Amino acid sequence: MIDSVKQAAGKLVGVGVGPGDPELLTIKAVRALKEADVVAHFAKNGNRSRARAVVEEYLSPDIAELELRYPVTTEIPKSAPAYCRALHHFYDECAQTIARHLDEGRRVAVICEGDPFFYGSYMHLHVRLAPRYPTDVVAGVTGMSGCWSAAGEPIAQGDDVFTVIPGTLPERELERRLAESDAIVIMKLGRNLAKVRRALHRSGRLANAIYVERGTMPEGLTMQLAAKADDHAPYWSLVLVPGWGARR
Amino acid sequence: MIDSVKQAAGKLVGVGVGPGDPELLTIKAVRALKEADVVAHFAKNGNRSRARAVVEEYLSPDIAELELRYPVTTEIPKSAPAYCRALHHFYDECAQTIARHLDEGRRVAVICEGDPFFYGSYMHLHVRLAPRYPTDVVAGVTGMSGCWSAAGEPIAQGDDVFTVIPGTLPERELERRLAESDAIVIMKLGRNLAKVRRALHRSGRLANAIYVERGTMPEGLTMQLAAKADDHAPYWSLVLVPGWGARR
Repeated sequence: MIDSVKQAAGKLVGVGVGPGDPELLTIKAVRALKEADVVAHFAKNGNRSRARAVVEEYLSPDIAELELRYPVTTEIPKSAPAYCRALHHFYDECAQTIARHLDEGRRVAVICEGDPFFYGSYMHLHVRLAPRYPTDVVAGVTGMSGCWSAAGEPIAQGDDVFTVIPGTLPERELERRLAESDAIVIMKLGRNLAKVRRALHRSGRLANAIYVERGTMPEGLTMQLAAKADDHAPYWSLVLVPGWGARR
Repeated sequence: MIDSVKQAAGKLVGVGVGPGDPELLTIKAVRALKEADVVAHFAKNGNRSRARAVVEEYLSPDIAELELRYPVTTEIPKSAPAYCRALHHFYDECAQTIARHLDEGRRVAVICEGDPFFYGSYMHLHVRLAPRYPTDVVAGVTGMSGCWSAAGEPIAQGDDVFTVIPGTLPERELERRLAESDAIVIMKLGRNLAKVRRALHRSGRLANAIYVERGTMPEGLTMQLAAKADDHAPYWSLVLVPGWGARR
């Protein structure tokens, strides 16, 4: 329930909810949800917010919720300037909506999968609102930490160079970067898995590559990428190349 | 108190305790500590374990504790084979000690700063014991997540390449890697800060480099590296170069 006659100043709080298991929320995240007047989350058209599902058990029944629904942009390629403009406008509008709550003195918690400042949408709101309002960011366990922990695969140690690489990169660049990092996480597999597999093979890293699908969920799957028969990879998948392996 | 007539099989649990703030433990980490029969932690000679200090409030007064004290090796250079052998032998001994508890059916929680599989000592025990005993790894918030969150600095977004680089690398290699990553964390500053600063300058990244010291502690400090007058950097410090900055 929104209390519109609060004395305290409003506050924006970015809350990392971790990789998917509700037990991987931090104590501070749970407290931030309890203290919030409004809980906001991003949602894609037709999809329920995953962050929202993760925090279900921690929300008061009477909490005010704010859904930030992405515009339908599937008809525009992601690389097009029109796509960037549409998103930019969307984040501007979200920030204005949240600003109205902050002006009324409310605490607004924006929930984010993983860690808010690590490839999260929250940062688009943060850079728009932090110059004008008090903010707090509750660090969270990243999706990749959840995956390598669930898979039982130590990823990096000592003086390892650790690199997160998007599978969207050109094949030659993927190959070069794979060859010169000790420990690697490849994200954004989607339609890129065949290309990623070729780059791993040519850089000599395929034998140590581990494919993880829905790593922190009950139906999660972990296997050697070399043993995976197809090149289908859903959104919740990534490839781990432990740096540790060679020196174990 | 150790219950020596347990029926259940022993279990090794690596517990990430996060970046330093006791509120950044996960719900699962707190539960793992409550369920443990023995809580083990690494300690350096003459230094109190930081992980142990972070979990203080979550431990039962009668919990059995096991301190794994690193051998005194300061007289041997870290690059020397003798140093590696001494550490290898130390981890072997630690694993044997823990195995005796596991054989008695006890749950042993090994607490680690940050995330256990991300540059953590726990992995040395895990690889020795996981083939023989049930294990669980509780992912934690990394020290670097704690730092960029406390500093209010979004680090990576979209198709950014994100790289963790140790400051121990040769200067030319540092420079090259800094030039070709979007988002960067430089660890292990110590005596390397002057070198790191030169490499950042020559790769054109110094203007965006942020120095963070004891990022998640009350006495924490965040500043532009370019504005830092000296090249002194304690153990709990790192440099952030947000990939996000250029496209904000």
